[in-house]
Formats: sequence, C-alpha cells, structure tokens
Amino acid sequence: MSEFAAVDVIRTKRDGGVLSDAAIDWVVDAYTRGAVADEQMSALAMAILLRGMTPAEIARWTAAMIASGERLDLSAVTRPTVDKHSTGGVGDKITLPLTPLVAACGAAVPQLSGRGLGHTGGTLDKLESIPGWRAALSNDEFVRQLRDVGAVICAAGDQLAPADRKLYALRDVTGTVEAIPLIASSIMSKKIAEGTGALVLDVKVGTGAFMKDADMARELARTMVELGTAHGVRTVALLTDMNTPLGLAVGNAIEVQESLDVLAGGGPADVVELTLALAREMLAAAGLDTDPAQVLASGAAMDSWKAMIRAQGGDPDAPLPTARETEVLRATADGVVAGIDAMDVGLAAWRLGAGRARKEDPVSFGAGVLLKVRPGDTVRAGDVLLELRTDEAARIPAALATAGGAVRIAPDAPTAAPLLIDRIA
Amino acid sequence: MSEFAAVDVIRTKRDGGVLSDAAIDWVVDAYTRGAVADEQMSALAMAILLRGMTPAEIARWTAAMIASGERLDLSAVTRPTVDKHSTGGVGDKITLPLTPLVAACGAAVPQLSGRGLGHTGGTLDKLESIPGWRAALSNDEFVRQLRDVGAVICAAGDQLAPADRKLYALRDVTGTVEAIPLIASSIMSKKIAEGTGALVLDVKVGTGAFMKDADMARELARTMVELGTAHGVRTVALLTDMNTPLGLAVGNAIEVQESLDVLAGGGPADVVELTLALAREMLAAAGLDTDPAQVLASGAAMDSWKAMIRAQGGDPDAPLPTARETEVLRATADGVVAGIDAMDVGLAAWRLGAGRARKEDPVSFGAGVLLKVRPGDTVRAGDVLLELRTDEAARIPAALATAGGAVRIAPDAPTAAPLLIDRIA
Repeated sequence: MSEFAAVDVIRTKRDGGVLSDAAIDWVVDAYTRGAVADEQMSALAMAILLRGMTPAEIARWTAAMIASGERLDLSAVTRPTVDKHSTGGVGDKITLPLTPLVAACGAAVPQLSGRGLGHTGGTLDKLESIPGWRAALSNDEFVRQLRDVGAVICAAGDQLAPADRKLYALRDVTGTVEAIPLIASSIMSKKIAEGTGALVLDVKVGTGAFMKDADMARELARTMVELGTAHGVRTVALLTDMNTPLGLAVGNAIEVQESLDVLAGGGPADVVELTLALAREMLAAAGLDTDPAQVLASGAAMDSWKAMIRAQGGDPDAPLPTARETEVLRATADGVVAGIDAMDVGLAAWRLGAGRARKEDPVSFGAGVLLKVRPGDTVRAGDVLLELRTDEAARIPAALATAGGAVRIAPDAPTAAPLLIDRIA
Repeated sequence: MSEFAAVDVIRTKRDGGVLSDAAIDWVVDAYTRGAVADEQMSALAMAILLRGMTPAEIARWTAAMIASGERLDLSAVTRPTVDKHSTGGVGDKITLPLTPLVAACGAAVPQLSGRGLGHTGGTLDKLESIPGWRAALSNDEFVRQLRDVGAVICAAGDQLAPADRKLYALRDVTGTVEAIPLIASSIMSKKIAEGTGALVLDVKVGTGAFMKDADMARELARTMVELGTAHGVRTVALLTDMNTPLGLAVGNAIEVQESLDVLAGGGPADVVELTLALAREMLAAAGLDTDPAQVLASGAAMDSWKAMIRAQGGDPDAPLPTARETEVLRATADGVVAGIDAMDVGLAAWRLGAGRARKEDPVSFGAGVLLKVRPGDTVRAGDVLLELRTDEAARIPAALATAGGAVRIAPDAPTAAPLLIDRIA
C-alpha cells in the first residue's frame, strides 16, 4: 500500500495542507529506502515549492533527514568547533582562506563541502586543482585531522544525511531547487549531522545567488537559524551581496591563487572584508576572543592552510594548473564600470569549462574568468574588462556571448553597494 | 543537454509562465521516448495542476499526445461514428446498454474503454465477467466489428496515444490526477486518435466523481468540447449527478446483470433515463433521427448486445459469476433515505474486491454492493439497506466500516436531485 500512502502525502501538500510528523518521518525514510519512488518525491517537492511548509514541518523534515544517516561525534576534538556555509555564489572562494584562518585563531573548523553544479562553483572542485589533494576522508581521518590540524575541508561521507544526498540530486533535475523549506533542510541537516557546535551562514542575495531578493534570503536565513538553534547548534547568518562576483577570479585554480593572495596578506578588498567578517562571527560563536585580522597579518593562517593541504595529500607549493587558451573582452566606450553581473560571469566561467553540466562531468581546473576591473573603476574604450581562460578554444564564442553583457559601463560612478546587508541571529 | 531543457520547461510552468508550442511538443515526445524522466514529468504535472494551462497550451498538449501514436482510420465504416466517454463514477455501467442501443439505432460506436482503478469501476473489468469475452482486438478486428456489428467495446491499442498511457500511469501514483488540463487532454487525445466522428461526454459531478463541484466539472466539459471541436469531432457534454451511485448494482458481474435488465426493457429508472439521454445526444451528433426509447422497447438493442458480445468471443447466455460470501447492512432507525454516498459505496465495493489497488491486481467478478433502497424510500429499523458480496470473508469488516455511513436516514423525504445538471455544446 506504499503508493497509496505516498499519494496521500502528496495530495495533502498539493491541496495546501500541513503534513503530520508521522507523514514526514515516513516519506523521508521511505524515499531513502526506495519505497517512495523518485517520481513521487519530485511531485511532492514541487508541491512543497509551490505551497510552502510551516516552521514545524520544516523542523520535522530536517530531523527526518538527519535521522536517515549517522551523526558524527566530534567529542574527541577539544577545541570549540565552528563551521561556515555559503548558499553559493560566483567567485565565492571564502571557505579557502577562512577555514585555516579560523583554525589559526584557535577553533576547529569541520568543513564538509560540495561540488559545483550550474553557474556556482564548488569548493572541492577548486581544491582539487592542487596537485595530490584528495577530497575523500574516512570519518576517523576527518576527526583526527580536525583534532590535530584544526581545519578540514572534505567531501561529506555517504552516511551523512543520505536522504538529502538523494533528494538534492533529484531536485536538481526536476526544477525544485528553489524552495526555501527544501534548501534550509538540506543545508541544515548536513551541518547538524556533521556535529559542529556552532555555525555561521553566508546567505547570498543577488543576480548570482539562488535568492534574487533580500526578503526571500532573509526568510531562508531565519529558517536556518531557527533550525540550528533548535538542534543545539549556535547559528548566526549574514546576508551578503552577490550581484557582483566576489574578488577578481571566477574558476578553480585561479580562485585558489586568489585565496593564497589573501592568506599572504594581499588579495581583493571584498574577499578580505568578507573573510574577516565571517571569521569574527565564527570566533564569537565559538566563544573565542581572537582578532582574525592580526592572525592573518601574522602569517599563521598560511601555515594552517599548508598543514591542512598536506594532511590531505596535497602539495601546497606545487604550481597550479593553467588554461591553454586566453581571450579578452574589451570596453567599447569610455566611462565608469557601473556593475558586473555575477550570473553572467558565472555562466561564462561555466561555459569555459570551470563548471559541469552534469554531476558526472569533469571540470577544467585552469578555466575561468578573471575580472580586470571592479565596479567604480574608470575605463576607456579598448581597455580589457575580462580575461577568459579555457582548455578548449571551441568554448570561447559561447562564453564571450554570455560575458559580453556582464560589464555595464555608464557615464557616472555608481553608488557603492555594501557587501554586508544584514545579520540574523 | 536534455535535463537542462526539461528543467527549463518545468521552471517555466512552475513560475506561472506559458509553455511554447515547441516546448510542449518536445516534452511530450521526449517523455514518450524516455529522454525526459518520470521524475521530471511528475514535477511538471504537479506544476500544471497548481498553475494551470491556457486553452492554447491544452490544445497543443493534446495534439502532441495524439501525435505520439497512430490515429485510427474508420473510413471503411459507412455508418456515422459516435462515441461516448464518462469521466467515471460509481455504478456507472451506462456504456454497456448504451453502445448496443445506439448501434441498433443506426450509428457505429467505437468504444475504447479502460479498467477501473481506485473507487471507480472499469468497463472492461465488468465485461470480462462474461465467460469467453476478450477485451483485446487488433486494429483490423476493431474496424471490421465496427463495420459489421456497429458496436465495439474493447481496450485501446498500445499505439493509441502512447504518451497518454505512460502519463496516466504516472499521474495515478504521483497525486497529479486531478488537473483539468491533464484530464481533458488525456480523454480527448484518445478519443480523437480513435477516429470517431462525434463524441458525447458524460462529465460526472459529486462525491463519487473526480470533480466534486459543478463549476470545475463545467470547466472540464467546456475544455473538452473545445478540444473535440478544434479537431473536427462534433462534441457535446452532459453534466450529470454522481453524489448517488447509478442504479442498484456496484461491481462487475452485477452491473452486467443490471445492464441486461435495461436492455430487456426493465432496470432502474436512473440508469434508463441516463442511457436514453446519452443515446439521444449521440444520435443527434451522428445526424440520425431515431427514437432510442422505441428501439430499446423493440428488443433490437438486446440483439445488438448479443452480437457484440459474441463477436468478441463471449457467451451472452452463459450464467454470470457470483460471489461466495454475502453480508447485509441494516437500518438502525425508522425514516426516509436522505442520501446514499457514492464515494462510500464505491470504496466499499473496491474493498470487497470489485476494484484493484494496483494496475496489476485481478478483480473479483462477483464482488460488489447491491443497493436495496434508493433516496426517498421509507425504511424501518432492521430493513436491509445494502447487500455486500465478496469472495473473501476477510474483506467484509473493512467494507462494512466504509459502507456503514453511506446511507443517511432522515425523518423527512429529501428534495430529489436532478440526474441531468447541464448540457454544454
């Protein structure tokens, strides 16, 4: 009678009703076991997207996803644990400098990351451009590195919220990604299951983010903060701008290089600003009173980075891969850069090979887009705006077509948009 | 890139947009070929259910479903062709007396029917209770019988709107049955593909129907009439009441017996009334000026029935199967029968074994519910209201629990509800 039960659950949500705790527990578990079919879960996901969920439903759904797998035990780690999660943006390499920085400040950072899909990059794809580095760790290796190095960035194990793993892949091909209850429960089930004591969320808003407007982003942030708090994880969210790409590099190896610049005390101002803002939140949530700017300036964060990369087989001093082909996009008029569209740049990088169209595709480590200007810069016709890099020349025309409209040039300087929009705790 | 295209189509409808002709053609064809996955189509079906479709979208979707298979050529049939379709109800055996009656009046009736699923019965299941009768005919056999006998009731071939066949099975398990665009296109694609020249629709309204209220039923009727007309099929719809079961028998063999009673000149008044009303509409649509009441009284319809059954291997004179176990439900108070809930009776019959829970289940030919009273009848405590029949005694308690509330007894006589609610042409 499982089909009948699944249809009843779908119909209840379809008709705007509230799912009972028992219905949620059953459908999440049955889907993980395969007793509820993909086509039933995708219809339910669409109904959830269009009808919404109450806070109680979201909490129960999240709990059911956590219960679908194991929950890591980080009690062997004596330092306070604190993690960060970004909802995903273009040029968002913040995890790379942030994780070793916060570890160097005295916390332990258990970063379970993902791969890129679509126009947003994935932290693991970026790190894999470092020769020798491996994303897969056993639970024991994960806990040991967290204890000994204080910083781990690796792939989530198969047993961590397997319901979410299955549901995420399904949502991706069924147009049901953009549902706040499903986004919030997906993120929070993994973060709660990984066992972190505190969590800082970077909720992106803008053309390059899943949330295009601040009200929806705020709702998502509030939902996640409530979920974390309810499960005993100290959770804070920052709303940050994603209309413009973060930093000057959008790709894989080129984002690692930009992260190294930050760890070395340089790097683009916006990347440094956001790294420090998130570090301060993480340290406060972890109960540590350290100034991350001082630690960054001391070089201790770079030491922590090297230890973290080496612990996972990587050579932090090896040269990074570069792309074979380069093309530039030039300004066609004099003026001031009024805006650089994050979505256009993200799609262009994706078309150049930095991202993947399907889960099983490889990525090109060297491919991507380098911004040669930032909003507010004065340019003259003929100046280089963007540099496109790829391993396959055939990819350039489509990427150029996308990137062509990314940089808006106006007669006057734009009003600078703040990077930090809001804080929700 | 097929996943990307499918996701784009889903997103467009999800966000309330209108699907282009090309998108509809592509998604219906790709789904039939298997290039669009079940989980993608079910998400799209849910979005269609909750967002709706414009008349132009419904017309194109229907055309795409027709184009997914073959269209029958009935030009060898010299008599005017006219079919009937009911949206499904409880005790709705009208196809059985109606098809031979209209054939006896001079038309040819190409009835491609289905099987029951859930609480509504299926015409093929009912006819299969006749020893020897077979539902499957080749296209050649179908056209020959239509030409020679004038009446055929059989299963639709695999090549008739295969997109609908696949989609219908999917909707059934994903809570996406009750979408007017999908119901209308499903019914009309099959009827148009079968090649009939005219069509009369019996759109049911009430507790035992898919459409619970008259406004939705009217919208469905209008949508289908427009679709038929646009494809050159003269189409008329009657809205008829389905709050009360039709006739006194709800099951398989017991409905065949009731149909034989009608063909013999007897039978319940409501079954006779609806059979004649639909026959008049069908004959008018076929351009024939014959009085079906006279033909029914003459016995010619019974002759046509026997010829039709024999042509498909059945023995019209063989005894019909009977159920092994009988239980009765009695009145607990004196009064007047105020109502008999069609859904409750349909579910009780289904629980007794007359219907199936899954497509692959067999049905019990003898099982079902016999009504011993009709709305308006005066009863006394202890009088038999319903007789339950089944092959398995273990099914009786659940059926009794469902049937228990089906018959409402009140102190006064109810206002008689008309059987024919509206006519849409």
